[in-house]
Amino acid sequence: MRLVTIDDIRLAARTIEPVAVRTPLLPCPWADPDRPLWLKPENLQPIGAFKIRGAYHAIARLPADARARGVVAYSSGNHAQAVAYAARAFGVPAVIVIEDTAPEIKVTATRAHGAEVVQVPLPDRESAAAEIGRERGLALIPPFDHPDVIAGQGTIGLEIVADLPDVDVVLVPVSGGGLISGIAGAVKALRPQAAVIGVEPVLAADTAEGLAAGERVHWAPADRARTMADGLRAEPSELTFAHLRKLVDGIVTVTEDELLAAVAHLARTARLIAEPSGAASTAAYLNHAADFPPGRTVAVVSGGNIDPAVLTRALAG
Amino acid sequence: MRLVTIDDIRLAARTIEPVAVRTPLLPCPWADPDRPLWLKPENLQPIGAFKIRGAYHAIARLPADARARGVVAYSSGNHAQAVAYAARAFGVPAVIVIEDTAPEIKVTATRAHGAEVVQVPLPDRESAAAEIGRERGLALIPPFDHPDVIAGQGTIGLEIVADLPDVDVVLVPVSGGGLISGIAGAVKALRPQAAVIGVEPVLAADTAEGLAAGERVHWAPADRARTMADGLRAEPSELTFAHLRKLVDGIVTVTEDELLAAVAHLARTARLIAEPSGAASTAAYLNHAADFPPGRTVAVVSGGNIDPAVLTRALAG
Repeated sequence: MRLVTIDDIRLAARTIEPVAVRTPLLPCPWADPDRPLWLKPENLQPIGAFKIRGAYHAIARLPADARARGVVAYSSGNHAQAVAYAARAFGVPAVIVIEDTAPEIKVTATRAHGAEVVQVPLPDRESAAAEIGRERGLALIPPFDHPDVIAGQGTIGLEIVADLPDVDVVLVPVSGGGLISGIAGAVKALRPQAAVIGVEPVLAADTAEGLAAGERVHWAPADRARTMADGLRAEPSELTFAHLRKLVDGIVTVTEDELLAAVAHLARTARLIAEPSGAASTAAYLNHAADFPPGRTVAVVSGGNIDPAVLTRALAG
Repeated sequence: MRLVTIDDIRLAARTIEPVAVRTPLLPCPWADPDRPLWLKPENLQPIGAFKIRGAYHAIARLPADARARGVVAYSSGNHAQAVAYAARAFGVPAVIVIEDTAPEIKVTATRAHGAEVVQVPLPDRESAAAEIGRERGLALIPPFDHPDVIAGQGTIGLEIVADLPDVDVVLVPVSGGGLISGIAGAVKALRPQAAVIGVEPVLAADTAEGLAAGERVHWAPADRARTMADGLRAEPSELTFAHLRKLVDGIVTVTEDELLAAVAHLARTARLIAEPSGAASTAAYLNHAADFPPGRTVAVVSGGNIDPAVLTRALAG
């Protein structure tokens, strides 16, 4: 299977330049001196998450005539807003299929970026998106299972190595695996001795189990849905799992309490609002440093679209 | 009176490069299309505020022998942490004089950066700092009334114009005036047609009144202390007022409710934790746009060190 290359990622970096924020690395004065820590705050992207990188790059890579007809995606989360935002940047229509049980705030946010929202029962999302794509001639933009999406997310790795050439450890949340596949693709090409470590909730640790077994394992969606980290409930595809097996040095798992405490820690010490999924890498740093090598560490804060009630609970803790 | 020049600010930019974060401009999708808005998130500096720029530059500009003896400053706020952090970066001692009524959390934060804290009654802070400086041979680093401090803060203006060359309006909180003096010095040198607008709380609007009168006016400290924006309670010096008169296009005043609402707005839409002082420019954008020209607008989010109780109140509103 062809993995994404550093050249793919470099091309993506040029492509996304007009819309993605070039996020800085934020040094953390409170970090362990043996493990100085920098945050990569992808929650500061215009839609509040890294997903804009992959979505915009994937739309940019469509043939011009296909792009002009528009795009379709299924997601209730950050990918929905990313596709909506990127499509508007190109001036093309976007249809987002959202489950009919999603909170109204997510529907509103997606519509605010100019997308048409179609609501269907959760199990029908993927098939409904495929059908709408066929009927209206719209290109499907998948959340992670596509080389162009992976290359777009990989630009984060390029930026990390550019800003911190002697980085030793990169901590990355893992869900479908598109983010860590891209980042590892960049980091391992440019700084092979750096460790790229995935972070999963204990309650959705299918990738940790799969990598230990040497093959993908399937956890029931209801099991994966137990974690509050709603951005970390997907499971790798064949393509992302191939990247993970080849490029990732290990997976650390974090508890729900650790996720919530990391949200509070980021708010208090880094003045960043992260969603639980986005705080997972910080939770790993704060609680499981023995599980990865010491040295100059970067934690990717992948998103900040947190339920206000969860934020209140975190800050009260 | 000699004002700070663009060359002074360019020198400061090279000086602070090792410690200050090169903050990006964050585009705001929710902004009025006639006034596209970018945030300059200085709350993401390592000490949570822009003050690191001026403090580090001022210490860097001391003669080597004076710097080696150490520095002293009086402040209970962001300047205290900035001087402590910058002194540690140079490996020199720092003494910070803090009023004995300051919250313990501020004392702890300053000590965490390696500084010695001396507590005295509020009215004695300045004289105590001067005396400690004389006795121990420490250089006093003032919070705003010094060309090197102003030039350091001015690097924010350099970065704004570099990232958004056709900027039309820059909104900057005003307290002692060091921040806006530096930013206006850079912006007016590089993009003279851009408007630089100060923002003050209604409850500490001495600078608005002073500029209207053509001379500094003095508000009693107890009056200025009424605003929750504890970073905006100082008043300009002769030096900063000279910059303000020459370079600043106007002052907008914001209410306490507007400050609190802007804190919430930044948390929800930009995933940034700002203190009320840091949210003042956003409050001006949201509520008083008629008071300044339209066009491409930058709001400087100057700091994020908010009292947790105030944050909770803002998020509940």
